[in-house]
Amino acid sequence: MTSLVISATDGTARMGELRLRRGTVRLPAFMPVGTAATVKGMLPEQVRESGADILLGNTYHLMLRPGAERIQRLGGLHKFMDWPLPVLTDSGGFQVMSLSSLRKITEEGVEFRSHIDGAAEFLSPERAMEIQRQLGSDIQMVLDECPALPASHERIEQSLALSMRWAARSRAAFGEQDGHACFGIVQGGIFADLRRNSAQALREIGFDGYAIGGLAVGEGQAAMLETLEATIPHLPADRPRYLMGVGKPDDIVGAVERGVDMFDCVLPTRSGRNGQAFTWHGPLNLKNARHAEDARPLDPDCRCRACRGFSRAYLHHVVKANEIIAAMLLTAHNLTFYQDLMAGLRQAIADGALGAFAAQFRADYGAAEDGG
Amino acid sequence: MTSLVISATDGTARMGELRLRRGTVRLPAFMPVGTAATVKGMLPEQVRESGADILLGNTYHLMLRPGAERIQRLGGLHKFMDWPLPVLTDSGGFQVMSLSSLRKITEEGVEFRSHIDGAAEFLSPERAMEIQRQLGSDIQMVLDECPALPASHERIEQSLALSMRWAARSRAAFGEQDGHACFGIVQGGIFADLRRNSAQALREIGFDGYAIGGLAVGEGQAAMLETLEATIPHLPADRPRYLMGVGKPDDIVGAVERGVDMFDCVLPTRSGRNGQAFTWHGPLNLKNARHAEDARPLDPDCRCRACRGFSRAYLHHVVKANEIIAAMLLTAHNLTFYQDLMAGLRQAIADGALGAFAAQFRADYGAAEDGG
Repeated sequence: MTSLVISATDGTARMGELRLRRGTVRLPAFMPVGTAATVKGMLPEQVRESGADILLGNTYHLMLRPGAERIQRLGGLHKFMDWPLPVLTDSGGFQVMSLSSLRKITEEGVEFRSHIDGAAEFLSPERAMEIQRQLGSDIQMVLDECPALPASHERIEQSLALSMRWAARSRAAFGEQDGHACFGIVQGGIFADLRRNSAQALREIGFDGYAIGGLAVGEGQAAMLETLEATIPHLPADRPRYLMGVGKPDDIVGAVERGVDMFDCVLPTRSGRNGQAFTWHGPLNLKNARHAEDARPLDPDCRCRACRGFSRAYLHHVVKANEIIAAMLLTAHNLTFYQDLMAGLRQAIADGALGAFAAQFRADYGAAEDGG
Repeated sequence: MTSLVISATDGTARMGELRLRRGTVRLPAFMPVGTAATVKGMLPEQVRESGADILLGNTYHLMLRPGAERIQRLGGLHKFMDWPLPVLTDSGGFQVMSLSSLRKITEEGVEFRSHIDGAAEFLSPERAMEIQRQLGSDIQMVLDECPALPASHERIEQSLALSMRWAARSRAAFGEQDGHACFGIVQGGIFADLRRNSAQALREIGFDGYAIGGLAVGEGQAAMLETLEATIPHLPADRPRYLMGVGKPDDIVGAVERGVDMFDCVLPTRSGRNGQAFTWHGPLNLKNARHAEDARPLDPDCRCRACRGFSRAYLHHVVKANEIIAAMLLTAHNLTFYQDLMAGLRQAIADGALGAFAAQFRADYGAAEDGG
């Protein structure tokens, strides 16, 4: 069970809080990805200082290494990774489809081989929920099938039917867990009728929150936003809405305008490890030689560690030299940027000024110095 | 010019302070190595929190990338890497011998090719001092030749003669720099007569401090300590003594007992990146499967971040998964261990109890759980 408090709306956008046993999540929220029990390159307190109220953990990675039973014996994921605030875990389904080999999907579940050591593994709706309970996850996601796009209406409809049967089994396996939440996942590709059917099917099962899955997989921003518009009206207003795996800063702004409350994405962390910094004037590629003697910080107004004390020239140097501190500083910066974007969106909704905020953001961000 | 204050002695061991323009260095001191303008895996404030008063920077690495002139234009090394406290730089000679290719040593200096891009480079005593001045180094080291051991008395004597001529040229090139210091380097392999001659030659030139180079290169701890005993009596008591590139914790204890004031070594940082943790009961290899379910911290009495909040099981997991946080946490732990060892040595000297401290250290440390 969770408690959703909507404090302000602006059009279809919402601002408020999701109250969980381990802490309150300010909405709209961005969840950094802590794949293998760590947000890569960051200490837990640094993630918190960036402004994060909640992390995402990956069931697939954790079940393979170090193993959910082991984490349970060690006191759960929060204690294991020294993160006392809420954690949302995915079901593992998406990574099974994208990372593992030799998959075989049946009504019962999915057989696959670990990408780490090739070991035979099995994931079912019941097993996915058991693992998330062992981890001690605050928000547990149902197992679903994630078909690759583009796909035909028929293929998506078949996949969706299986995902809805798995959603019912996942919900039953979750049962009642005081202070923990179970979210369903709307599927249906870019087909409005299937998205509506999926939302309806999940509402009949009844969930603490509703995720929108299967987007940001190559369909493009316009199709993604259209799909949100076709989906969100069919979701209950008194439950949080989570757009999985999204996204670029402008994706997030568009999705918040359409009523999404929660996001996760590897982009700020992965980009940070690849020498890319997000700024209000677009992304910068620190590998670029034009930064080599630039004494300015990434952003003079940013509160992150990279912007307090280090020049673009220094960041260029440590990126080129493959130094660990490059990943540390750019990840800290990017997570801070994402959290400050969310804070800006929350304030704009509270002020009834989201349209102006979004227009200003798009005007500034489109002026990317490095051309994106 | 520097100011050395010896507050206590115990046998030939000394405890005190080296006062520099940018800060005071507590002696005996361990200097973490910040090769390429970063102590790998650490933010500058984390290095400071470990207890470090001074860092070492590598002239060879910095001259090749990003270049000493560039660092000078950007305000010097301290500003560049956001480390306001003292920095000692080596002369580049050792790395030229160990990392570069196509070396040609003449009376004038050494021609070599960069290990990064193969570019032709040249280092002379005058150029080495110019680079260190451009970096803004607080303690600048003379250029010397570092012959590989084992080597004959004749070979070492020839090399030493060149190094002493280079020392005089380096000292002349350094000139007078208010608040900055220039250290000479005693060479001579493991030959007591050559070490004595080298110390005498350097004293005649006159330096702010005296380093002992060319040790810890395979001669073994016993030969290293014997060489210290043959060298240190010939160094002036009113100048700091720095044993370059040393070493293992028990090497440091033995060298402090023999009167060494300063140390640098990549061991705590490099070992941290390789999954090894130093403890008072010997080193631990976190890759070892026996740590996989061990809920204990590395050391319950340690004040570092790795020991406050993380289990050996977690450290094992992140080491096995090659996560950046493994390098961050184990480096922080190892640097804290080294600094706490130095603090323990300082206190023992102040208490006139160094013999008991060293005996206890050797008894505990020899009981390495992982067999070293």
